[in-house]
Amino acid sequence: MEGEVIKDQPEWRQGDIRFMKRALELAERAAGRTSPNPMVGAVIVKEGRVIGEGWHHRAGEPHAEIEALRSATEDVRDATVYVSLEPCCHFGRTPPCTKALIDAGITRVFYATSDEDPRTKGEGHKELEAAGLEVVRGPLEEEARHLNRAFFHFMTAKRPYVIAKYAMSLDGRIATHTGNSHWITGLESRAETHRLRDNCDALLVGAGTAIADDPELVVSLEEHDGRQPLRVVLDSTGRVPLKAKLFDASLPGKTVLATTSAMDVYHRSELVSKGVEVWEIAPTENGEISLIPLLERLTQHDVLSLMVEGGAITLGSFFAEHLINEVWAFVGAKLIGGSGAPGPIGSTGIARLEQSPPLDVYETERLESDVLIKAKVV
Amino acid sequence: MEGEVIKDQPEWRQGDIRFMKRALELAERAAGRTSPNPMVGAVIVKEGRVIGEGWHHRAGEPHAEIEALRSATEDVRDATVYVSLEPCCHFGRTPPCTKALIDAGITRVFYATSDEDPRTKGEGHKELEAAGLEVVRGPLEEEARHLNRAFFHFMTAKRPYVIAKYAMSLDGRIATHTGNSHWITGLESRAETHRLRDNCDALLVGAGTAIADDPELVVSLEEHDGRQPLRVVLDSTGRVPLKAKLFDASLPGKTVLATTSAMDVYHRSELVSKGVEVWEIAPTENGEISLIPLLERLTQHDVLSLMVEGGAITLGSFFAEHLINEVWAFVGAKLIGGSGAPGPIGSTGIARLEQSPPLDVYETERLESDVLIKAKVV
Repeated sequence: MEGEVIKDQPEWRQGDIRFMKRALELAERAAGRTSPNPMVGAVIVKEGRVIGEGWHHRAGEPHAEIEALRSATEDVRDATVYVSLEPCCHFGRTPPCTKALIDAGITRVFYATSDEDPRTKGEGHKELEAAGLEVVRGPLEEEARHLNRAFFHFMTAKRPYVIAKYAMSLDGRIATHTGNSHWITGLESRAETHRLRDNCDALLVGAGTAIADDPELVVSLEEHDGRQPLRVVLDSTGRVPLKAKLFDASLPGKTVLATTSAMDVYHRSELVSKGVEVWEIAPTENGEISLIPLLERLTQHDVLSLMVEGGAITLGSFFAEHLINEVWAFVGAKLIGGSGAPGPIGSTGIARLEQSPPLDVYETERLESDVLIKAKVV
Repeated sequence: MEGEVIKDQPEWRQGDIRFMKRALELAERAAGRTSPNPMVGAVIVKEGRVIGEGWHHRAGEPHAEIEALRSATEDVRDATVYVSLEPCCHFGRTPPCTKALIDAGITRVFYATSDEDPRTKGEGHKELEAAGLEVVRGPLEEEARHLNRAFFHFMTAKRPYVIAKYAMSLDGRIATHTGNSHWITGLESRAETHRLRDNCDALLVGAGTAIADDPELVVSLEEHDGRQPLRVVLDSTGRVPLKAKLFDASLPGKTVLATTSAMDVYHRSELVSKGVEVWEIAPTENGEISLIPLLERLTQHDVLSLMVEGGAITLGSFFAEHLINEVWAFVGAKLIGGSGAPGPIGSTGIARLEQSPPLDVYETERLESDVLIKAKVV
């Protein structure tokens, strides 16, 4: 994608790149808050000076362009706008941004990438051009696509973008052969997990992990607005005990138990009375929860991004159905060994290496003694 | 160790660091060539200018200090020498360096770290000081210890420094559940493997890997002096067929087959007639090759550094006996999955995470799509 942009526009001015980078930074401030909308940031520039900035805070609130126009410290007439996504030209929950830009007297618009929303794709560009504005796609298209990759996936696949997250030892084990797994990674990795959770709409674990680890699946960060991702437990037969932390009524946010008709009705009503939402999903031939119907149900709840935190059986099921879009692998400074010690992705796995999904390792990061490797399925 | 040095010498001059760094670079040029000696580099500096450089090329040839003195382009009297290891003061295969430095009229010596050779440790320092030279330990002591970590281990443990090398997928598998393993990593990782082999004295695989992968275990690099590490195959019963590439008489360098008395005598003599050296090693209770006696035999052959390239059973045996000193984990951009797909280290493994050897992840490197993680057991 970057290649294509470079061909069209061989030389971006340093200023254009700098202002668009700023728009992307602003957009990212609302990570995890905008679903089902994308993250968008906008910068208004006049004579080389930034005179307005804004970003989309959450669905139903003003778009980035409007926020930027409102924040302007000078007359915006004849100014240039840098926005991380093509301006919308349709009435949604808010009026179209194209009209606002035209009415404000903006004369040039740089947008990093086109929208995938069929109501807007290319249309915003056309409408601005028809009104006499100079309109440019780019720079930083690739970066803008990456930032909103969950949104773009959601718009085209109509399903959440699934991120598989696991912590494994340097020899690829998520636990010892006896099941001991606390802790393979260090404090900094675990803090990073909370930051990553905070950017996702929902978090999911299987019943085995819910029982073995008894996780809370909450975001715990020092500076935090209190928003909690939806918690989802896969439990086809209702094995997770009532006293599990995930079902604690005092937890902030909401827990969903995804189950099948095999679950005991009394147990189910007890969970509901504790505030847990119970979703009955069609089972697979093996009695497991069918993942596609589950993802479709999450789609209805505006879950664009879903972080699957394990265990191996659950990740194996997502892997087997080709539903993993991205991997966050925390590699801890431990050696576990043992042919009976589990790896992060269970199930049958692939038979031939050619069957591996093609991965783009887009980031590696040191976190104290650990290494975080992030890869997208491309 | 760095901490200690900083306490003694809170402020190293930038020049001292730069010249010592150069001495370390020179030392490293002979990586894999100096055993049983350490790698050593030396720089002679006068009035801020480098007037001589040298390094130890191989055992039996002149030491770094002598090489540097010989290369001097000006009178070395009153010059300063930076050497990566404490100068020797004993007659070995070559005369002592301390005498040469004193005779040449050198007035100051910086050495990065003390020797571990009991004949020299601290003695070189004393002898130079007694002759009126200014002698300083440091800077870059930690880097110098790291560079010669195999040598220092060998001097104290009297056994080779063992490096476990493996290639695994991003989900920690070295093969699919059907055994398919070519290729998990890319071309750049495989080229790096050859560079790492080139720095080791010996390479080792188990019989299973020798049969399944039929490797040559040679160093294949564009610019290369032809030195080949000793190849070692663990094969307690003589399962590896005669036609295996490792036994090919036309391979450069030497192959050792480590076996037990359980091996067929006729098969053994055929191997010997092909130029393979056969070492009979005492078996363990399970009939496997005892690793400590094997390492002791390698010690007699001046093998300071041994790279164990797998498979999982072999690495599991080294791990079980706490013989792994370092890990080079190549993490490929693949997902394999499957609870039956093997991880890099077999055997039983540890039961509790506290039993993991403490690791220092000292380097991570991107190699195209792959990530190489290097960690020392500390």
